[in-house]
Order: sequence, then C-alpha cells, then structure tokens
Amino acid sequence: MELNPWGSSTIKDYDKLTREFGIQKMPNLGISNRYFRRGIIFGHRDFDKFWNADKRSVLTGIMPSGPMHLGHKMVVDQCVFYQSLGIKTRVLIADIEARVTRGISKEQAQKLALEEYLPNWIALGLDPKKADIYAQTNRSVPYYSFYSLLSGRITLNEMSAVYGNLTPGKITSALVQMGDILHPQLPEYDGPEHVLVPVGADQDPHIRLARGFAEKEHLIKPSATYHRFATGLEGGKMSSSRENSYIALNDPADVAVKKASNALTGGRNTAAEQKKKGGDISKCVVYELYAYHFAKSDKELAEIRRKCTTGEMLCGECKQMLAERVGEFMSSLAKKRERAKKEVGKMEIFR
Amino acid sequence: MELNPWGSSTIKDYDKLTREFGIQKMPNLGISNRYFRRGIIFGHRDFDKFWNADKRSVLTGIMPSGPMHLGHKMVVDQCVFYQSLGIKTRVLIADIEARVTRGISKEQAQKLALEEYLPNWIALGLDPKKADIYAQTNRSVPYYSFYSLLSGRITLNEMSAVYGNLTPGKITSALVQMGDILHPQLPEYDGPEHVLVPVGADQDPHIRLARGFAEKEHLIKPSATYHRFATGLEGGKMSSSRENSYIALNDPADVAVKKASNALTGGRNTAAEQKKKGGDISKCVVYELYAYHFAKSDKELAEIRRKCTTGEMLCGECKQMLAERVGEFMSSLAKKRERAKKEVGKMEIFR
Repeated sequence: MELNPWGSSTIKDYDKLTREFGIQKMPNLGISNRYFRRGIIFGHRDFDKFWNADKRSVLTGIMPSGPMHLGHKMVVDQCVFYQSLGIKTRVLIADIEARVTRGISKEQAQKLALEEYLPNWIALGLDPKKADIYAQTNRSVPYYSFYSLLSGRITLNEMSAVYGNLTPGKITSALVQMGDILHPQLPEYDGPEHVLVPVGADQDPHIRLARGFAEKEHLIKPSATYHRFATGLEGGKMSSSRENSYIALNDPADVAVKKASNALTGGRNTAAEQKKKGGDISKCVVYELYAYHFAKSDKELAEIRRKCTTGEMLCGECKQMLAERVGEFMSSLAKKRERAKKEVGKMEIFR
Repeated sequence: MELNPWGSSTIKDYDKLTREFGIQKMPNLGISNRYFRRGIIFGHRDFDKFWNADKRSVLTGIMPSGPMHLGHKMVVDQCVFYQSLGIKTRVLIADIEARVTRGISKEQAQKLALEEYLPNWIALGLDPKKADIYAQTNRSVPYYSFYSLLSGRITLNEMSAVYGNLTPGKITSALVQMGDILHPQLPEYDGPEHVLVPVGADQDPHIRLARGFAEKEHLIKPSATYHRFATGLEGGKMSSSRENSYIALNDPADVAVKKASNALTGGRNTAAEQKKKGGDISKCVVYELYAYHFAKSDKELAEIRRKCTTGEMLCGECKQMLAERVGEFMSSLAKKRERAKKEVGKMEIFR
C-alpha cells in the first residue's frame, strides 16, 4: 500500500476503497483546481465520460440538519469550480430526507436552508442565478412520479445491502435520492445529460445504487468523484454533535480562530524532539486544513510540509499562521453571507 | 349469528368482520339507493360523520389491471349515486400501484384506463365534468410531497401487520394510497373536507392505516363503507384469471348472456325436489346478480326470492329472465361506452 500523503483522516486506506469497490483512482487530467491537483479527490467512477460529455451537470444535496461547517465547504468549492467552467450546477435541499430519516420538520429544514446553508453557498461563490436550486418537497411532477415508480425495480434485500436496517422513511429517502441523481436525464427535464455527483467516500453505496437503477432504466450511469474526509479538529471523525470538532461557517471569527488554534497537530513531546525528528504530518489536522482550504498555493503547501517534517517550523508558528488565515476567511465570509441573505430572500425555493 | 340474507359470497360471516375489526353495522338511514336499502353495504366507519359533513367528497381508485367487470360496477354505482346528490367525486387511476406491485407499465395502464375503465365509468353514469379524475403519476406537487413525508411516520412492522410481506414497491404503493385518501384534506387542495371511501370488506386494512395516519397528522379520519363481495359466476371468488368467473363490461352481449345462463344456482337435483323444497338461495349467484344489479325494484327482488324458495319458479325460468336483462344491459352499455370514448379522448389525465 502506497503511503498516504495527506495526514489525518478517519479512513486512512483510500487505496483499499478503490480496490474493493471498483472506484477508479483519479488520473492526472491536468485539471487546474486544488481538489484535483492535491489529490483531495482521490477516486472516481466514469469521471472521464462526464468530463468529455457535451451535455452535463453537477448535482449535490444540502442536508438541512446541524450547522454548515468547513467539511461541507469541500463540495461547495467543487461546485463553484464546475460552475466557473460553465457546467450546469444543481443543488437540492434534502428536506424530505431530513424529515423522514431525522424527524426535522419541513419548516425547520426550510429555515436552516434559507438562513444558513444557501447564504454560505453563495458567499463561497455559487452563482444562484445560474444554478438549479430546488427542495425535494417542491420539485415538479415527473420527478416524483419517476422515483415512486423506481420502487418497483428493487427488492428489500438489495436495499438493505446498501442501507442496513430499513424503515419506510429510509426506503423513501433512498428512492427520492435516486430521483435526485437520475431525473435530470428525463426528457421532461430536457435530458438526457451526463450527471456528476461529487461525494465523500462514504457515499459510494448511493452512487452504486443510482448506477444500478440507471442501467435498469436505460439511462446514463451517473459519474462520481470521491474526496477525502474532513478530519475532526480534535482528530477522529468530525461530528455535528461535538462543536469543537468542526469550524462552523457561522462561527464568529474569534471562535473559529480559537478552534483552529486548538486543533490537533503532529507535534512531538518537546520542542527539542520536534526540531530533531520533525512533526508527524500524518496526524496533523492543521496540515489538512492548509491542504484543503488555506494554503495559498501548492508551492506554499509543499513548503509548509517541508518545514514541518524537517523540524524547521514548530507547531506554534504554523498554527499562528493558520489562525490568521482562518480569521480573515471567516470575517470575509460573514460579510459576503450578509449580502447573500438578501439574495436568498428573493428566491422561491419552497412554497 | 344472524342468517345471511344474501346467498352466496366468499366471506359469509360479515357479522364476524364487524365484531372483530370494529366496523360498525350500517344503520337504516333511509338512504334511497339499492346498495343501502338491500344491505349490500353492510358496514361502515364514521359514515354518519361524512353524511352530516358540510364539505365532503367520495374517493375511489381504478386499478388498471385486467378487465373491468360487474364486480367493479358496484363502486361505480355508488359514486354515481353520490354524484347525483351533488357530492364531489374523486376517481384516481392507480398507475403507480399497477406498475410497482404488478409490473404493469405506465403505458399499459394508461391504455386500459382510457380505452376500457373510464368509458365504462361514464357509460354507467359518472359525469366526468363534475368529477376529479386523476392519475397517480400525474397529480400535483403537494400530493407527492405529502405521501413521501408520511414514510417517516410509520415503522416496517406496522406496515407488514397490514400488508404482510413487504417490498419497496408495496411500501411505496401503500404510501401513495394514503396520499390518495388523505390529500383532499390538505389546504393546497382546498381542504379540509370529509372523505368517504366506499370499499369491499377486504380493503379495510388500508382504511385503518389511513385513519391512523389521519390521527398522527391531525387530519379528519376518513370514513368508509363496506359492501359485500361479488361472487364468481361459478361460485367461489371472482377472479380476473378465470374469465368464466365474471361478466366483463366489454364482453359482447351474447357472451355475457351465455355466462349469466351458466351461472351457479341453488337449484336442487330434480325439478320435483325443487318444487317441494324450493331453491337454496344462499348458494345462488343468479339471485346475487338480481340483488346487486338486475332486479328492477326491491319488491320484484322479494318476489323472485319468494317464488324461488317456495318452489314456484324453477331455475330455468329465473335464469331466462336474468339472461334477457343482462343482454339488454350489455347492449345499452356498449352504445353508451362508444359515445363515452369520444369524451374520454378529450380528457387530459396523463401527460
């Protein structure tokens, strides 16, 4: 197994994922975006087909549950990148899923989407005028009819292989998700078109299911890219239930700075030891934050890595720089978000 | 147990049904319709509440699968009766259910609904202009959103208690059905209104489920009436897979007449025995056909019963009269159906 160049993450062995589930390793296509250049997107299914398609779109979902954080930013950045290339972007608000699998009311979901998620999406660069933004509770008839009819094309066993213990809510939620991924291909939505779904590695079961349905329904198998997980600030998994495990995009700048300053590093027990051995970058969440979000260039990232692993720069200095960048980023984002809120206020997503 | 006055049926013990499941016996409300007068409708849930409601509608479904036959006519007659009282009638075409539980394509379902079911409904007296006729695949957004969200309000165990072995198709189909029964109450459909669903006794599990959901969603519990089963012409259950068990409404008149002439009676082994003992009306499908469809009045029905059970009239004579009436009915229906087809051609039910 190849050494993981990225440091911390809850699934270390991305190679194993690609071996066992048939996810392809992402080849170097010379795409000028840090998620590709830095190998944050490590794998794909049929990305090349999407990339070469004439008619194509990128689709992702917002789960209106819990605060929006830096982990969510990874998909936003990718969508903004595709949008900058003129590729159609579809963003769905998973309010049916939120209600039937998590008990979040339509009203709560709506509030969170309109007041927190969409303003941050726009503040991060999404052009809402060029995007297809919809709520699962408020699409149009062929979408619903399509996913309801899909229920006749799968068994409970096939579903529980993907989702584990089933409930009527989970079954409906899975079907709605299939509708989200596949409906842009229907003639009623001006299809066929080649859809790409950028996801974290844990979302692959949904992708496999959608590709299976596509085959049954004689549609184009949707493509996917898989990106690395965002590690919790304290190491381990990032979790909405532990607020020190993430920087929420709505955190006040000083709170975010403090969280970044307390993030887990790969520092040694003593400064002397670290100067001698260098930092253990494979455990360092600070390094991950630079790599995913805050390094200004690949060159700077490599320099941070070099200085750390040779012991030239210790954690204090490195964190200080990160904290400054986090502070600047958060202040700037907050201003953009306030402007974005006015724009969202005029949108008709829910009825 | 009270003696069943009706002769043949696959569930003899309607009283047991009412005792065990809490279906109320239908009281005599003096409703001037043969299904009520003759006790063909034997039970109900909350019929009185529906009957006294200001805003109310009757809802039923067409399953576009197999030929439409005299058994189906029972619900049509009831809807036509309610329509004659100025009560709103909603007729849904269960094309999602047909596809996901029986593998009937949307196109097949559409063809059968437009070419056979709806023309017969209209020929039997439904005024389509005053009815709300829709296909499950082609309602409007709040309906879909509503039934999808209902999935979060029930467990798999609760569902299998009603439906037995589950599949994703059966689960979706059940939820869609709940949507059908309950959605007229939503504000988007100008609700609340009190909905009555006239069904055969075997449909009670769906009614119970719908009433349970209504309670959870703070809606009005839908009312139901329960009518007796239509017995197969050869006795036993009427089945779409045995074409001699039913008179299809699209049967040529001579075929229908022949089927009626071959129907099971309660005749004795010899004419002499029958003249002495009278016919066994409890086994007689011919008598059931008079009671449900072809007796011109309650008085005539009572007279047929008297003549049969006293041995005054033998089966040959009785069947001869029935066959004539079936022939006249079928010829007249065929003419009306041809006219109705033109009307259906102009309706926009599917897209």
